[in-house]
Amino acid sequence: MLNELRRALPAGRVLTDPDVLAAYAHDEAVWAPHELPLAVVRAHTAEEIQQTVQVCLRHRVPIVPRGAGTGLSGGANAVAGGIVLSTERMTAIREINAAERLAVVEPGVVNESLRSACAEHGLWYPPDPASAPWSTIGGNVATNAGGLCCVKYGVTRDYVLGLEVVAGTGELVRLGRRTAKGVAGYDLAGLMVGSEGTLGIVTEVTVRLRGARAAERTVAGYFPSLSAAGDAVAAVSESGVVPSALELIDRHTLAAVDAWKNMGLSAEAEAVLLGRTDAPGEDEAKMLTDCFTATGATWAAASSDVDEAEALFAARRLAYPALERLGPVLTEDVCVPRGAVPEMLRRIEAIGVRHAVRIANVAHAGDGNLHPVLVVPPEERARAEAAFEEILDEAIALGGTVTGEHGVGLLKRGGLARELSPAVLAMHAAVKNALDPHGILNPGKVIASCAPSS
Amino acid sequence: MLNELRRALPAGRVLTDPDVLAAYAHDEAVWAPHELPLAVVRAHTAEEIQQTVQVCLRHRVPIVPRGAGTGLSGGANAVAGGIVLSTERMTAIREINAAERLAVVEPGVVNESLRSACAEHGLWYPPDPASAPWSTIGGNVATNAGGLCCVKYGVTRDYVLGLEVVAGTGELVRLGRRTAKGVAGYDLAGLMVGSEGTLGIVTEVTVRLRGARAAERTVAGYFPSLSAAGDAVAAVSESGVVPSALELIDRHTLAAVDAWKNMGLSAEAEAVLLGRTDAPGEDEAKMLTDCFTATGATWAAASSDVDEAEALFAARRLAYPALERLGPVLTEDVCVPRGAVPEMLRRIEAIGVRHAVRIANVAHAGDGNLHPVLVVPPEERARAEAAFEEILDEAIALGGTVTGEHGVGLLKRGGLARELSPAVLAMHAAVKNALDPHGILNPGKVIASCAPSS
Repeated sequence: MLNELRRALPAGRVLTDPDVLAAYAHDEAVWAPHELPLAVVRAHTAEEIQQTVQVCLRHRVPIVPRGAGTGLSGGANAVAGGIVLSTERMTAIREINAAERLAVVEPGVVNESLRSACAEHGLWYPPDPASAPWSTIGGNVATNAGGLCCVKYGVTRDYVLGLEVVAGTGELVRLGRRTAKGVAGYDLAGLMVGSEGTLGIVTEVTVRLRGARAAERTVAGYFPSLSAAGDAVAAVSESGVVPSALELIDRHTLAAVDAWKNMGLSAEAEAVLLGRTDAPGEDEAKMLTDCFTATGATWAAASSDVDEAEALFAARRLAYPALERLGPVLTEDVCVPRGAVPEMLRRIEAIGVRHAVRIANVAHAGDGNLHPVLVVPPEERARAEAAFEEILDEAIALGGTVTGEHGVGLLKRGGLARELSPAVLAMHAAVKNALDPHGILNPGKVIASCAPSS
Repeated sequence: MLNELRRALPAGRVLTDPDVLAAYAHDEAVWAPHELPLAVVRAHTAEEIQQTVQVCLRHRVPIVPRGAGTGLSGGANAVAGGIVLSTERMTAIREINAAERLAVVEPGVVNESLRSACAEHGLWYPPDPASAPWSTIGGNVATNAGGLCCVKYGVTRDYVLGLEVVAGTGELVRLGRRTAKGVAGYDLAGLMVGSEGTLGIVTEVTVRLRGARAAERTVAGYFPSLSAAGDAVAAVSESGVVPSALELIDRHTLAAVDAWKNMGLSAEAEAVLLGRTDAPGEDEAKMLTDCFTATGATWAAASSDVDEAEALFAARRLAYPALERLGPVLTEDVCVPRGAVPEMLRRIEAIGVRHAVRIANVAHAGDGNLHPVLVVPPEERARAEAAFEEILDEAIALGGTVTGEHGVGLLKRGGLARELSPAVLAMHAAVKNALDPHGILNPGKVIASCAPSS
C-alpha cells in the first residue's frame, strides 16, 4: 500500500521516519487515545489529496486529515495502520476580492496570514480563535472554529461560502458558491464545516469577508468572585449591547500568565472581564462599564491606554500555554445560555472542590462559551476525567452543549452521546455512511462507530 | 389509509373536500406540475405531524409539507396519491427571550407576526422576504428565504439556531441548540434549512434575534438604462459600503405597480435603485448617492421624505402581484457575483429580445440576486420556458447560481443538474436516502429521483 502511495505521489510526500510519525500522532489533546500512523502524507495540491484518498479507498486504509495540529479534542489523533494527511504545505492565498468581499485560499493557510493579507486590502476575516497565529483555515473549517469576536461576528461557518473537497468516494467536488446568496440544493458546504474531517477533506476554501472595522475600545472590570463576573455577563446580555468581545479570565489564569511573562498583571481580583466595542462613540463602552459596576466590580473602566488593554488581551491569548507550564491540562469547552453563565461558573467551582482538581477559567463569556482548564498532575488523571465529564453534564443540564467551538474529536464523544438523542445520533451515522460509504475518513471521530460497507 | 389517518388524528384534521384539495394542489408556481392530493392534513401539533408521517410511512404514501403556499418554485406542489401536510394552524409564538436574543415559534407563524412580536421586545428578526405578510417561518426555513435586508444581515439560515423536526423515520428529534455557539456533531439543523421539506418536517423553530436597529435612510436613483443601474450596484460593492438594502426596480415593474395602485410613480427612468442605510450619520447615504451619480443616474438623492421612500419600497413589495395582473408570470431567481450584475442584466435583456418575451426586472441587486419576471400569455409559454432556462445558463456561466432564495422545487431541477456536478448530485441523493430512507418526504422535489428502499 505504501509503495502504491509513493508511486501515486511526487517524491518526498510520503513520510515514514519514526520521528515524523511521532510528531503527527496527536493534536494538542494529548490525553486522548492516539497511535503511530503508518505514514504521513504532506500534500501540496488537491490532486495529491485525491490520489491519496483513492489509494486509501482501494486498501480500506483510514485517513486522518490534519491542519496545524492545534486541535484540543483529539480530532487529528492518528490510528495505527492509518495515514495522517497534512495540508500544512498548501498555503496559497489564491484570491482576495474586495468587490465580491471574498477570499479563496488553500487549507494550509494560517488564520493570521489570511487576516493580515485581507487587512492589506481594507478587508477583514473575523474568525479569530486563540490559535490564530498557528492554526490553519482548513483546521478552522474542520472544527468550525470560533474565537473572541464571535460574540458579535459569528464563527467560521458564518464565513464559509464554498469549499472544494475530496469526498469519501474519492471524487474532487465543489460545494457552495461564490455568490452572496444561494439555495441550489442542500447546504453540503455548511455540513462539511465542523464535521472534523469525517465527511470529506477540504482542499480549498472560499470565505466571505467584511470591510475593515473601526478601532475597538476596551473595558476592563475586576470582580471579587467568578459568579459576580458571571452576573456582569448576564447584565451585558440583558442590556442589549453586543460587544465585539467579552472575555473572562480568572485569577489562576492571570497568575499563570504573570508567572511566565512577568507582565505585572493584577491577580488580586478573582476574575477579570475584558469587553471590547467597535461601535462608534462612547455609549457602548459606558454601558459595559455600568454593567460591570452594577454587578459588583471592584474596579471598572474603559481603557484609554492601548498598552494596558493589549496586555490584558495578550494574557487572554497566552492562557493555554501559561497554564500548560503548570502541568498537563484538560481543556473544557462547554457553551451555555448567556443567562446561565453565573450558575455554570458556580457549578464548575463546586466540581473542582468536590474532585480536588485545580480548575482555571478562561471564557468567551459573552457567548456563554466557557473553557475551564483542568490542571492535572498525571497521578490525578482519573479524578480530572471524572470532573471533566461532570462539567459536560452540568452544561447539558443548563440547556447548553458539550462543545462550543473545539469540536467533538475523541474527548467529547461520550458527552455528545449524552447531549443528543439516539435518533439524532442515528441521523449522524446515516449521514456519515452516506458520504463516507467505506468509512475511511477519520473513522471513530465525532461518532463512536458506524457500520461502513466494505 | 385515510381511515387509519383519521383514527390517528383528532376530528377535522383530515380534509378531502374537492375544493380544499384543489386549493392545496400547488403553491404560486402554477406552471410547475401539480396534481390533486389524496388528502390535506392541517396539523395542530408536532405529535399530529408525527402521527401523520408514521401512517404515511406504513403505507409508503408521499407527504408534501406546506406553509402558506407562497413558494415560487413548486416545492409545495401536490402529487396524486399523496398527502399535503399544512402547518398553517401551528401559529404559537412560544418564547421571545431578550437576554438570550432568541425566539421559539411554531412553523405556521407568519413572518411579519414574528417580526412584530419581536419589535415589542425591542428585538428584530431580520429575514424579510417580499412574502413576509403571508409566508410562514416554517416555509421560510424550508426554502432558506431571503429578502431585502439580506445584503447586510443574511438569510434565514443565519438566524436558525435550532429545529424540532419529524424525521423521515417518523421520529420527533431536536437539532441544533439554544446557545450562541455550538459544534456538537454535524450541523443537521443547517442542513434542514433550505432542504424544502425533503429531509424532515419542521415542527418548531428556534431563531436568533438582533436588537432593534436605528431608523434607515433611503437613497433613490433613477437610471437611463438597466446596465447603468447595474454599474451603480458594482460601484457600491467596490466602495465598501454595505447598505441595509439595495433594490432594483425596472420601468416595466414601476409601470405595472402604478397602473394598479396609481401611486404617481415615475416611469420615465429605465431603472430605479433603492438603497437603504442604517449606519449612523450621513456618510453612507452620501456615498450611495455618489455611487449612483458617478455611474450615470439622471437623478439621485437621499430622501428626507419618509412617504416618498415608503412609496418606492411599497412599489418594490407590490411588484409580483402588480406584474401578475398583466398575465401569467414566470419568476426567475438567479444570483450572480455582484460585479457581474451589469453583464447579467444585459444578457437578460438580450434573451427577452431573442425570444420575444416581455421581461420585467426586480432585484435584490446588492446581493446580485436578480428576479427577472417573465410575463407570458399562455400561448407564448414554450418561448418563455426557453428564455427561463437560458437565463439559468447565463447565471451559471457568470459564476452564479440558478436560485438565490426561492429554492429548487420543481422549476429549477434542470438548472440544478446543470449547476452541480454529477458527483455533487450523487452526494445529494446519498444524503436524501440517508435521512428519508423510504422516500416519502416531498419526493421529486429538489433532486429528480432517488432510489428509496421500500
